[in-house]
Amino acid sequence: MAKLPIPTLFSLRHFFILSLAFNVTLILRLMLYHQTQPFATTTTTTNFDTPILISSSSSSDTNRVINLDHGDPRVYERFWRQTGDKSTIIIPGWQSMSYFSDVSNICWFLEAEFAREVVRLHKVVGNAVTEGRHIVVGTGSSQLFLAALYALSPNDAPEPISVVCASPYYSSYPSMTDHLKSGLYKWGGDAESFDKEGPYIELVTSPNNPDGHVRRSKVNRSQGFLVHDLAYYWPQYTPISAPADHDLTLFTVSKSPGHAGMRIGWALVKNEEVAKKMTKFIELNTIGVSKDSQLRAAKVLRAVSDSWEQGNSNEGESFFKFSHKLMAKRWKQLRLVVERGGLFSLPKFSPAFCTFFNQVLEPQPAFVWLKCEGNVEDCESFLRGHNILTRSGIHFGVSPKYVRISMLDTDENFNHFLDRLSGIQS
Amino acid sequence: MAKLPIPTLFSLRHFFILSLAFNVTLILRLMLYHQTQPFATTTTTTNFDTPILISSSSSSDTNRVINLDHGDPRVYERFWRQTGDKSTIIIPGWQSMSYFSDVSNICWFLEAEFAREVVRLHKVVGNAVTEGRHIVVGTGSSQLFLAALYALSPNDAPEPISVVCASPYYSSYPSMTDHLKSGLYKWGGDAESFDKEGPYIELVTSPNNPDGHVRRSKVNRSQGFLVHDLAYYWPQYTPISAPADHDLTLFTVSKSPGHAGMRIGWALVKNEEVAKKMTKFIELNTIGVSKDSQLRAAKVLRAVSDSWEQGNSNEGESFFKFSHKLMAKRWKQLRLVVERGGLFSLPKFSPAFCTFFNQVLEPQPAFVWLKCEGNVEDCESFLRGHNILTRSGIHFGVSPKYVRISMLDTDENFNHFLDRLSGIQS
Repeated sequence: MAKLPIPTLFSLRHFFILSLAFNVTLILRLMLYHQTQPFATTTTTTNFDTPILISSSSSSDTNRVINLDHGDPRVYERFWRQTGDKSTIIIPGWQSMSYFSDVSNICWFLEAEFAREVVRLHKVVGNAVTEGRHIVVGTGSSQLFLAALYALSPNDAPEPISVVCASPYYSSYPSMTDHLKSGLYKWGGDAESFDKEGPYIELVTSPNNPDGHVRRSKVNRSQGFLVHDLAYYWPQYTPISAPADHDLTLFTVSKSPGHAGMRIGWALVKNEEVAKKMTKFIELNTIGVSKDSQLRAAKVLRAVSDSWEQGNSNEGESFFKFSHKLMAKRWKQLRLVVERGGLFSLPKFSPAFCTFFNQVLEPQPAFVWLKCEGNVEDCESFLRGHNILTRSGIHFGVSPKYVRISMLDTDENFNHFLDRLSGIQS
Repeated sequence: MAKLPIPTLFSLRHFFILSLAFNVTLILRLMLYHQTQPFATTTTTTNFDTPILISSSSSSDTNRVINLDHGDPRVYERFWRQTGDKSTIIIPGWQSMSYFSDVSNICWFLEAEFAREVVRLHKVVGNAVTEGRHIVVGTGSSQLFLAALYALSPNDAPEPISVVCASPYYSSYPSMTDHLKSGLYKWGGDAESFDKEGPYIELVTSPNNPDGHVRRSKVNRSQGFLVHDLAYYWPQYTPISAPADHDLTLFTVSKSPGHAGMRIGWALVKNEEVAKKMTKFIELNTIGVSKDSQLRAAKVLRAVSDSWEQGNSNEGESFFKFSHKLMAKRWKQLRLVVERGGLFSLPKFSPAFCTFFNQVLEPQPAFVWLKCEGNVEDCESFLRGHNILTRSGIHFGVSPKYVRISMLDTDENFNHFLDRLSGIQS
C-alpha cells in the first residue's frame, strides 16, 4: 500500500488532536444553537406557553425562527447572575424530607420562611393587603387557579358553575377549566356577554394577559365569586395604584422575580373555608408543594426585598429598578419600530401614579398585544411567514387580527425580533 | 419604696440573663415537642396522609398521642445526615429560571440529569425495565396517577370510564378519582367485584398499600388499561423478583430514598401518545414540575446508586443495606410484641428470592396492616382510645377490624408505639 503523502511536520497524532478540537468546537456550537433556538422536525402547538417547534434548516438570519409565543421570563437572568451568593440556596440531603411543614397551619405544606417573605415583599411593594389573609402556596399559580375553582364551586349544584372572564382572556383559562369535563365547573366564555342567572366565578386578570390593561370585574351581580389573577401586578409592568384588597388573589414567582422553573405561586385568601378547600385540592392533586422550591423562592423574594431596602447603599442595584429600566427600554424600542411603519398598532395606555416608584409612569406589560392593520386578517400566520412565532388572538377569544408576543425573552431574541419587524415594514 | 432583698452577688443583669436562658430553654423544648408531636385544639381528618390533630393536654407518656396515620418517611433522615456533601445541592439564583428543560423531549419539563439518574437507579436495583420507555416526571406520583387517568380515558365516550382496584386499596384513590366529578373517569370500586362491560382502568399497587402483598391485575378482560403503582417496589420493602415490564408504571422519590418534601415522582410509559397526554395534563395542571426538586432528586438518587456501587469500599454504608436492616429490625420487634399478646394479628408473607440482595428474604412493608382479633370490631377507635392514631380499614374498602399503621416514622415514635402496644396487651 502506498503511503499517504503527509508532510513530516504533521504526525497522525497532530491530526487527531486537530480533529478532536474541531469536534469540541462543533459540539459547543451545537449546544449554543440549541440553547437559543429550539428546533425539531415536528410542529406541535399548545395552549399554554410551550414552544412551538419548527424545523429550521438554516441558521441564516431571516430563516432563524424567533419564538415569542410563550412568556418564558428569561429577561431577568442577567440580574440574578449579578447577585451571587445572596440568591444561592444550599439544601443538605437530610432536609425537608417530611410531607409536612406546619401542621398547625391550614395550609399544612406551606413553609413558614416562604410565607414570611411573601408578606414582606407585599409590604415593600405595596401591591396587596396581607393582613387577615390565609396564604396558600401552589405549584405555580396554575394549580391555585384550579384549587380556587374547586373551592368556590358549590358541591351540590344541579349543574356546573360557569367560569367567565372578559375577552381577551388568558388563552389557557378555557382548557384548564374544561380538560377534565368537571361536573363542578365549566368554562362560560366572555364575561361581557354572560347573562346566566345564579352563581358564577369571574376571573379578573389585572394587568390583563394578553393586553396589559388594568381591569375590574365585568359581571356585576350578587352571586359572583371573584378570582383576581394579579400575576403581573408588579412595578416593572404597571404603576402600583394601591394594595389589592380582594377575597381571593393569585400571584406567581414566575413573573415577579422571574423564576418560572420553580413552579411556585401563592394565593391570598380571606375566607377560612375557601383556604381549607384550596388546601384540600392541592392535597388531592399533588399532596403539597415542593419544599425545595418554596425555600428557594423565599431566598429569591428576600433578595428582591433586600435589594430595594438597600437600594440607596452600595449593595448593588434594586431588582425593580433593574427590571423597570429594562422593560422601559424594550417598550421604547418597540414603539419606535412599530410607529415608523404603519403595518401594526399597539395598545394605548394612560400613565398613572405609581406609589412604589413615587412618580407618574407608563404601563409596560410583559406581553405586546399587537394588531395587524390593513388587509392582514390573520396576524399570527402573517408573522409566522416571517419566522416570528406569536399567539393568535383567537386563543384569547378575539379576532385573529391580534397576536400576543412575549416581552420577557432574552436580549438576543428580543433584538432579533425588532430587526425582523423593522425589515417587514421597510 | 423598700428595696428588694437581692443578694449582692446577683445584679439585675444576672437575673435578666438567667431569664433569657430560661426562655431559650422553653422555646427549644416547645420546638422539640412540636416536631415530634403535632397538637392543636381541633380535630381534622383527611384521606391522604395529613396528620389528624388531637388536643393533648398532658405530655405524660400514656397521654402522648402517637400519630402513625400517615406514611411520612422520616425513618431515613438519619442515613441522609451521614452522607454530608454527597447529597447536598447548591442552586444559584440565576439557574433554572425557564419553564423549559428540553423542548425536544415529549416531557419538555423533564430535567435530563434527573432522567439519567432514574434510569441508572432502575439498572442498579433491577426493579424496572427502562428501555423503550418515555419518562414523565410529576409533582409526586399523585399527579402522575391523575395524569394517567386523563391520558387513558377515551375522550369521546358516552360515560366516564371506570377506575377500579382490588380491596384493600390505597385510601386516596377514590377521592383523587372523584373529587372533580370528572366526565372522563369515575371510581368503580373493588376490582374483584367489577363486572361492567367495556373499557376500564385498573390500578395495580404492588407491593400493596396498605397490606404489603405482591399483586397482579385482577380484572382479566381485554379492554383494560393497567396502571402499576410500584411506589414500594424497592429492596428495603420487598424482595425484587424481576424488572417490572408494564405499559405504565409509577414510582416516587417519597418512598424510595424517602424525600416526600420534594414532591417528585416519575412514570415509565411505553406508548408515546399516552406519554404526550400525560405531559399535556401536567402542563394544564401545573405547567411542569419544580426544576429545583428534580435537580435535588437527581443528586439524591445518584447518592443512592453510588452508595450501592461503592458498597464494598470504605465510602460509607449503602442506602439499601441501611434501610433494609432498619426495616428488618422494626418488623422483628413488632412481630415479637404482637405475637406475645393475642389481641392483634399481622399479615403473613412468604419469603422470596431477591435478585438485588441475592438471597431469600421476607417482605417488610412500609405499613403494618394490623387486625384486631376477638370482639374488637372497630380497631381504629380501639387504638385511638389508647392514643395511637391509625387509619381504619373502611378507608381502604374493607372491614374496620383492620387498621393501617406507618412503619416509616422516627425511631422515637416507633419505640413509643411498641411500648404502648405492649402495654395494651399486658
